Amino acid sequence: MKGKKSGKDSPGGAIIGIDLGGTKILASVIDETGKVISHFKKRTKPEKPYPEVIQRIATCARGAAEEAGIPFSSIAGVGIGAPGTLNPLTGVIHQAPNLNWKEVHLKSLLEEDLGVPVFLNNDVNVGTLGEQRLGAGVGMKNIFGIFVGTGIGGGLIIDGKLYEGSSFMAGEIGHIPMVVDGPMCGCGKRGCLEAVAGRLAIVRTIFEAVKKGEKTSLTMEKNGDIMSIKSNAIAQAWISKDPLTVRTLKNAAFHIGRAVAIVISILNPEAVILGGGLIEALDNAFFQQVIKSTEMHTLPTMLKETKIVRALLGDDAGIIGAAFYARDCLSGNETYSPKNP
Amino acid sequence: MKGKKSGKDSPGGAIIGIDLGGTKILASVIDETGKVISHFKKRTKPEKPYPEVIQRIATCARGAAEEAGIPFSSIAGVGIGAPGTLNPLTGVIHQAPNLNWKEVHLKSLLEEDLGVPVFLNNDVNVGTLGEQRLGAGVGMKNIFGIFVGTGIGGGLIIDGKLYEGSSFMAGEIGHIPMVVDGPMCGCGKRGCLEAVAGRLAIVRTIFEAVKKGEKTSLTMEKNGDIMSIKSNAIAQAWISKDPLTVRTLKNAAFHIGRAVAIVISILNPEAVILGGGLIEALDNAFFQQVIKSTEMHTLPTMLKETKIVRALLGDDAGIIGAAFYARDCLSGNETYSPKNP
Repeated sequence: MKGKKSGKDSPGGAIIGIDLGGTKILASVIDETGKVISHFKKRTKPEKPYPEVIQRIATCARGAAEEAGIPFSSIAGVGIGAPGTLNPLTGVIHQAPNLNWKEVHLKSLLEEDLGVPVFLNNDVNVGTLGEQRLGAGVGMKNIFGIFVGTGIGGGLIIDGKLYEGSSFMAGEIGHIPMVVDGPMCGCGKRGCLEAVAGRLAIVRTIFEAVKKGEKTSLTMEKNGDIMSIKSNAIAQAWISKDPLTVRTLKNAAFHIGRAVAIVISILNPEAVILGGGLIEALDNAFFQQVIKSTEMHTLPTMLKETKIVRALLGDDAGIIGAAFYARDCLSGNETYSPKNP
Repeated sequence: MKGKKSGKDSPGGAIIGIDLGGTKILASVIDETGKVISHFKKRTKPEKPYPEVIQRIATCARGAAEEAGIPFSSIAGVGIGAPGTLNPLTGVIHQAPNLNWKEVHLKSLLEEDLGVPVFLNNDVNVGTLGEQRLGAGVGMKNIFGIFVGTGIGGGLIIDGKLYEGSSFMAGEIGHIPMVVDGPMCGCGKRGCLEAVAGRLAIVRTIFEAVKKGEKTSLTMEKNGDIMSIKSNAIAQAWISKDPLTVRTLKNAAFHIGRAVAIVISILNPEAVILGGGLIEALDNAFFQQVIKSTEMHTLPTMLKETKIVRALLGDDAGIIGAAFYARDCLSGNETYSPKNP
């Protein structure tokens, strides 16, 4: 490969990695080796006007530097992973339903506030990059990350760098068609992976069965507000062998396994890394269900050269990946995007 | 991109591109612009011992040079696209059922015979490369090729170069799981794309329906030898609106369209190129059925930036792509493979 290798030409100094979520903002100072030096957290409060949220992000960045005991002026750059559709080149978030944002110029507004270069990318993309640099994908150049939470997202690393695609949406594994005439997805299509195996889909399936009279050990809090059932509660019901939860999760594992098989068939990567809130909360028995399905749906010759592994960095994948992404951008180690001439 | 750009550092001189199939061997001299200067063809005769087949390949290469009126000594290299699983680095064909070959050291044996560097890759891979350099993907860097013939194969170009994957099997779109509990595939799994939408699957579906008493205008030649029904006959029955053929092909188009949707969701490429014998034989109405299904199964924002186009080079994609592949290798413009350090 003629491209610069990851890390080799990294600029010195600390980087701030930021994970911007719908609930909280997490900022950390990350050193050149990827070590997390400090943590600074704030609630996002997306109900506020976006300039206020951006101020909160800036406060987190400064807070992380202070927490690390270093002057903000020594910060080389800021990397930020954000949800929704966005353009890393312009730094604009086109649409982020979790934040109620549309066409927000996050990069330029944050640069104005902080006075350092800011690099924006998708949260799942930078999470995958984090896992490749410092987590389950260390030493590998071609990996695919699948993150199962409320929804399902994916990220793709080719030759050690983020591969973004022609509209910066590569890795949209949550919306691949899995089941003909399957359940309706939030995107308006039917049978997407997310609609059969995301946390919301799982909880909805359980909820529908309960409405029809089935029993479950899962408690529907807040008068059946299914959004209120978290991954840990699902994991609890899975461990205690609640029949409805077990059946629903086995079906989810079956389809996640098929999706992993699809990724392996198309990309033949070194590893598929599975992470996200639901995967983290569930035990190894669930993970083995996924692998069993993948094995059933993949050519043995392809399976042999691809590892299927759990993510290692947990919540830190976002901040670490965002920092590595910023470092890559600062060192000219640009991503694979057709928009990059 | 720091990598050498395709073609820019190409060595001068003519290259011979070879398409090795189960039925015929096609060799051509290809100039630096990709222009086909000569054609030389022989039947493969895979029933003969493999050294004889390799001699036939060498004869084709020399014949192509002679046909072009240039001394073989001026040939800079030979590129060859072959079916089956193989290793481009060692030049060994591990398994090629069409040729009855196992562990054949094609590259070294052919180099010994011809005295020039030989570069081996998968036939669908080099076909996709041909389309990207001189066909439907000209000017694009990130494309996916899907070739529908007897079976279904795929190839992937990232940043203008072949992306091969960790066991050189990237692009195996024919074996992605499409239908739960679907028809048995030749690979031993159920519901693969190839098992619902390849030519053999289509003919088998029609044949089974006929056995159950349905009528068709398609003639089962040779006492129902379904292998004998070619793409052109299917296309004829489609145009004449034979109900059984139309129903079967619409189902195939539906699943090919879903597979294109999957590729777009995962890779967000600049284009998905559809080629191969069946696609070439069928009219635009069939192609529109595929696109209709893709649109139904893809996020509109992703669809916007990806072209879905028909291949342009027909049978020449293989020889042209093989020649470009050899030229890439000779100029050090290596492919994306984790095995390439």
